[in-house]
Amino acid sequence: MAVYLDYAATTPLDEDVLKIMTPYLLQDFGNPSSQHSFGKTAANAIVRARDYLAKILGCLSEELYFTSSGTESDNWALKGVCSALEYKGKHIIVSAIEHPALIESAKEMQKKGFEVTFVNAEKDGTISPEAIKNALREDTIFCAVMHANNETGVINPIEEISAVLKEKGVFFFCDCVQTAGYMRLPTKYVDGLSISAHKFYGPKGVGLLYLKKGSQINRLISGGNQERGLRGGTTNTAGIIGLVAAYVKAVEHMEINNDKIRKLRDAFLNKVLAISGATLMGDKNKMLPGHANIAFEGCTGEQLVMMLDNRKVACSTGAACSSGAVKTSHVIKAMGYDESVAKSSVRFTFGKNTSLREIDSAIFMVTTSVSAAHRIYSSKEKLEELKRNFLKKATGSNDTPKN
Amino acid sequence: MAVYLDYAATTPLDEDVLKIMTPYLLQDFGNPSSQHSFGKTAANAIVRARDYLAKILGCLSEELYFTSSGTESDNWALKGVCSALEYKGKHIIVSAIEHPALIESAKEMQKKGFEVTFVNAEKDGTISPEAIKNALREDTIFCAVMHANNETGVINPIEEISAVLKEKGVFFFCDCVQTAGYMRLPTKYVDGLSISAHKFYGPKGVGLLYLKKGSQINRLISGGNQERGLRGGTTNTAGIIGLVAAYVKAVEHMEINNDKIRKLRDAFLNKVLAISGATLMGDKNKMLPGHANIAFEGCTGEQLVMMLDNRKVACSTGAACSSGAVKTSHVIKAMGYDESVAKSSVRFTFGKNTSLREIDSAIFMVTTSVSAAHRIYSSKEKLEELKRNFLKKATGSNDTPKN
Repeated sequence: MAVYLDYAATTPLDEDVLKIMTPYLLQDFGNPSSQHSFGKTAANAIVRARDYLAKILGCLSEELYFTSSGTESDNWALKGVCSALEYKGKHIIVSAIEHPALIESAKEMQKKGFEVTFVNAEKDGTISPEAIKNALREDTIFCAVMHANNETGVINPIEEISAVLKEKGVFFFCDCVQTAGYMRLPTKYVDGLSISAHKFYGPKGVGLLYLKKGSQINRLISGGNQERGLRGGTTNTAGIIGLVAAYVKAVEHMEINNDKIRKLRDAFLNKVLAISGATLMGDKNKMLPGHANIAFEGCTGEQLVMMLDNRKVACSTGAACSSGAVKTSHVIKAMGYDESVAKSSVRFTFGKNTSLREIDSAIFMVTTSVSAAHRIYSSKEKLEELKRNFLKKATGSNDTPKN
Repeated sequence: MAVYLDYAATTPLDEDVLKIMTPYLLQDFGNPSSQHSFGKTAANAIVRARDYLAKILGCLSEELYFTSSGTESDNWALKGVCSALEYKGKHIIVSAIEHPALIESAKEMQKKGFEVTFVNAEKDGTISPEAIKNALREDTIFCAVMHANNETGVINPIEEISAVLKEKGVFFFCDCVQTAGYMRLPTKYVDGLSISAHKFYGPKGVGLLYLKKGSQINRLISGGNQERGLRGGTTNTAGIIGLVAAYVKAVEHMEINNDKIRKLRDAFLNKVLAISGATLMGDKNKMLPGHANIAFEGCTGEQLVMMLDNRKVACSTGAACSSGAVKTSHVIKAMGYDESVAKSSVRFTFGKNTSLREIDSAIFMVTTSVSAAHRIYSSKEKLEELKRNFLKKATGSNDTPKN
């Protein structure tokens, strides 16, 4: 069995969660929009789940909308809020390290006449409140800064950014897909946030949008009266029950799991950062417990991921969502690093099922893979060229990351 | 246990299908966009599923896009194709009996400057090719006519409508949510079609859009490179495997199940249409095997559904998607019936798990409920008023159904 170190890309469904979901797949399968007993059983389960989740998130049940993914939630929030608030202004701010769901949505709004300012990150991986403040204009209506970045795990100062935005009455959206289950979510500091069940041992295909009461939003998916008429499509009862059950379990065990994961991650970093030319991307003190994004000088991330896959260690370059296309990390570049550093970075993310034995095995495999990569390059006389690229100054010209 | 006669609203997940899905929830849970072995296992499963489904549907794998629901597929097709083809013209045709997913999407395009012609149905429940022909304009770019209606089960002459549209080069979209698993789908006659897994004993939260190669469409959900860059969001592996497994099983057993269901439905109709004032909505010869939408003179559908629920028979008024809001059926009205007929109709839909014993029980309960409803109205001296309304001529003024 291979060692899975890609928990930020997705997690296995928790077996306890599947047990809670199963009755809603088989027996209590009614359409929650139906008026009969089968429908009511399902509808009541959804009501209870929504109420419980609202309690945990510290908001009203009516502020929660279930969707099919974090990506759908992000799309809906950005496109829906911007088109609803268009009459106020057509300028929006999106951090340059956001998930493609937000960056691509912002680009589509550009086509519709909106102006977008993409705000780069600091070298430590954070988006600074000052940078947001500097990007603000009189006609700014919307700003998206994620809770923690999916590639580096670096946590942003949401409370401070919120203060900057609240003063100007700008809608603040916070993608919490990477932090849900690992941190208390900043519900009270934002106007909207998104989470996705499969990141915290829930099922794929279900997400959530929190939208502060009184917010204006247009629909992304029109249809029946589901989700108070704002999101059509038959309610995915089992999926929603799964999301809530997984979230409850994650929150209940948050501290214990985080402690365990942090210790394993630190043990890993301790050894791997000792490899010559290895650099941690982002400030470790501002990072989620399970993230370790490391640039390996003289290697390419893509090559290392494949070598490690052969050695039965699963990790990734950048986000899984875009890795199929082998692109350079827009996140590392937005932190001010050179293209070659972005290309040389590998993301290892640890989860509640990770064991010390797996960490030991991974350390060994990473060390030998990096050595092998260096040897391959040496023999091909490419190492010098790579190094030259690597040492080039950061260009910092990453205003609109291509994703 | 109550008798479930609402299979058109949703179906239970087939246990065999759940068994096929489970490994992709628990062990083979990798993100299909990941480059490592966990990702590849999932990605390969998706490739195989897509290829198999394409073979059954008679199309190319690359013409299939997995979504979160029939509603999302409908939204994407209408909004995405219309906005992509806007340069050609801004007139679209939508049958007045479409699912709210299409009617509401069309109304949103109206707000964006599109003109929409809603075409009413004939008294038999079908949309006639002539009516579509008459609605065509020089600037028509898109037409949506569903394969069979979800409320009446009446099947539309898709091949003939296709011939009318092909001549003019109009994009033809066909919502096949109600027919998938019950009929061969009209892939070769249309440019786009939608299906939803939970209508044929697959899981909720997963749908499909078929889009003919070469079609122009804009994205509804932007993000990563999933679905050839056209639909962002982490691929719902287990859901997709579930959709395909359920579809394969439904198609394999289609004839046997349809024969069984038709016999049960006909036995039901035989007795229930003998109730004084009961009228089948739509032409039985043009109907799916499992549908029976019946107007009961002197009753309201809503009241009957509740009375039957108390008597442990689950059925519905109109579609589940809108029944929460207790609205009059836009479908029955679009067939030229009076508001009071639309209000008096109840939909019974039968499935592969329906038994003869359940049918017998349902017949008894429907008969006694209708009698009781009549008694209640008599005692309240409302029967005459209801009858007067019922006998009023159809107004036929249903150009824009309110949903």
